[in-house]
Amino acid sequence: MSRQQRLDVLRQHMAERNMAAVLLTDRFSKYAIAELYSASGYVLVTLSGLWILVDGRYSAECSQNNPDVEVLTLTAEHPLSHFLRQFIGTERLFADASAISHLAWQALESQCGLALQHRDASVLRVHKYPDEIAKIREAAVIADRALQTVMPFIRPGITEKKLADHIEMAVRQAGGSKTSFDTVVVSGTRGALPHGRPTDKKLMAGELVTIDFGAVYQHYCSDMTRTFALGNASEQLKAIYDTVLIAQQAARDAVRPGIRCQELDAVARNIIASAGYGEYFSHNLGHGLGLDVHEAPALSPQNAQPLESGMVITLEPGIYVPGLGGVRIEDDVLVTERGGEVLTNSPRAWGKICL
Amino acid sequence: MSRQQRLDVLRQHMAERNMAAVLLTDRFSKYAIAELYSASGYVLVTLSGLWILVDGRYSAECSQNNPDVEVLTLTAEHPLSHFLRQFIGTERLFADASAISHLAWQALESQCGLALQHRDASVLRVHKYPDEIAKIREAAVIADRALQTVMPFIRPGITEKKLADHIEMAVRQAGGSKTSFDTVVVSGTRGALPHGRPTDKKLMAGELVTIDFGAVYQHYCSDMTRTFALGNASEQLKAIYDTVLIAQQAARDAVRPGIRCQELDAVARNIIASAGYGEYFSHNLGHGLGLDVHEAPALSPQNAQPLESGMVITLEPGIYVPGLGGVRIEDDVLVTERGGEVLTNSPRAWGKICL
Repeated sequence: MSRQQRLDVLRQHMAERNMAAVLLTDRFSKYAIAELYSASGYVLVTLSGLWILVDGRYSAECSQNNPDVEVLTLTAEHPLSHFLRQFIGTERLFADASAISHLAWQALESQCGLALQHRDASVLRVHKYPDEIAKIREAAVIADRALQTVMPFIRPGITEKKLADHIEMAVRQAGGSKTSFDTVVVSGTRGALPHGRPTDKKLMAGELVTIDFGAVYQHYCSDMTRTFALGNASEQLKAIYDTVLIAQQAARDAVRPGIRCQELDAVARNIIASAGYGEYFSHNLGHGLGLDVHEAPALSPQNAQPLESGMVITLEPGIYVPGLGGVRIEDDVLVTERGGEVLTNSPRAWGKICL
Repeated sequence: MSRQQRLDVLRQHMAERNMAAVLLTDRFSKYAIAELYSASGYVLVTLSGLWILVDGRYSAECSQNNPDVEVLTLTAEHPLSHFLRQFIGTERLFADASAISHLAWQALESQCGLALQHRDASVLRVHKYPDEIAKIREAAVIADRALQTVMPFIRPGITEKKLADHIEMAVRQAGGSKTSFDTVVVSGTRGALPHGRPTDKKLMAGELVTIDFGAVYQHYCSDMTRTFALGNASEQLKAIYDTVLIAQQAARDAVRPGIRCQELDAVARNIIASAGYGEYFSHNLGHGLGLDVHEAPALSPQNAQPLESGMVITLEPGIYVPGLGGVRIEDDVLVTERGGEVLTNSPRAWGKICL
């Protein structure tokens, strides 16, 4: 069961670093260990203990989901500090400072009367277990299905916003609980905005349109981007598309355990730079994917972390030329012992839509 | 123009508290002052100056939206600290610690070489200006329209999840950009979960179903809850419904400038307690509403802040009886000079759906 495996990994990490206790505060980490998908409540992990601390609204559900774990009910008389004193005494307590506001961090310290130490909690979720991979795989299949459903709507005359609405509905009809983030639909010169929100602008013949969306399936995310040409686009846009596709294909082929994130980023970045578009690829190659749509590892030029089997990443090179337009192609890839297995499988070839 | 008014209010607040400079970091505050709706970038406000600091991806758009404001481009050579030193020197810099992670807060302090001071930024958004009220009003109308559209689907046999999907689509078709949070649809005993996620459970005759959702219109939110009876529900459920409705009506009638948030909370809470359900009303009466779906003021038993004309709040008493079910009724209310104007107007009377 992946929950026990995750707990073992976390405890090994703690033991190696002399960490006596970790307090999980974000919904993704709490869900990974205790199926608590809420901003409220805490999961406390020590080398030999595990407790779920929630207010009365969540106690029954937590006990039901975790029959072998002690669920403690937080009240005004018995706040978090009461239990922390009881279970960890004066030991150092670690929490992930990127997953809690500065105000909440300070309140926790003051409430508990101890100094929290920051420790990145990504170790908990960076490796995916078979049950998690199955859910991400399904989220990817749902995204593929949803894109196929909306293809007939990708025509001149529809607005970016209306197309985004169709995608939301198609994801839900294909079995997703919702899209995994606000869908990006940008067309024409708006394609130069990597994260543009869909507007009332209508798609027009001769333009490119970039669609970046994902599905959530049982809390796990997919994330995919495709760029289509509405009829005959210019030679320059076609050349940009070809460059991005070659760069993305090269990155897909280069995925293997042991390659560093920055090396993989460089595979795509060098191809784009060689084609003369280096300054127009303004973001990282990709990111980890799981319960959160952006999680470790970051595929950035700075990250020297090596990929390992069981990680799930996105590969999403793009070229954005202000005043002209943009192209991005993105897939989700599972790192396996033998290389990479692509989970999103919508066609990638120059997607000219015949008008 | 509301942006200038908000800036004036912020500067008056700063002057009264001897605050030389405020750095806005969250998307809502940045949008309120500079139409920058992004987690990335900063808005720096001093008593006489205003700057937008963004990386190259956002510069052009920010300049276009703010022709009179200096837009500075952040680069590796010219990071935030470079500009802060230039514009505010060694003056104390304030930021909202509830709107930034502890890790980011520490990085900012270390990057800038100065200690940030926490200051709640809610003063910036707690009063709504006419252009904002118009947008919240439209978001409320969209929610009303969407609920009307989905009424025919609220029947035994449909799943909670499918009903939530219909609501998402109805909000978008009615002119909303999306729902303002993950729609709650809970039926039968699941109604006892105040924030339950919709499941594959089917609605059944004799149950209550609670639907809590909202619309986003031009970044502004609405938030409304209605509870319906699917045919003949039990007398006990009807009695609970009547209690919640009376409590909610009393709270609506009591809205006026000057009443304290805790007093308004008590109006509803006392009615529910008198009816014997006090322990089952497990959350606050409501919250402020605007760019964020939960913002100041909190209508909690602890908050002594008086309501003022121009605030927009939700009133959402509920009773949740484990093993039985629950009822919540929620409306959005604008505080006016003369009292409260209810913005959401879907029918509230015992909503028995004839089967």
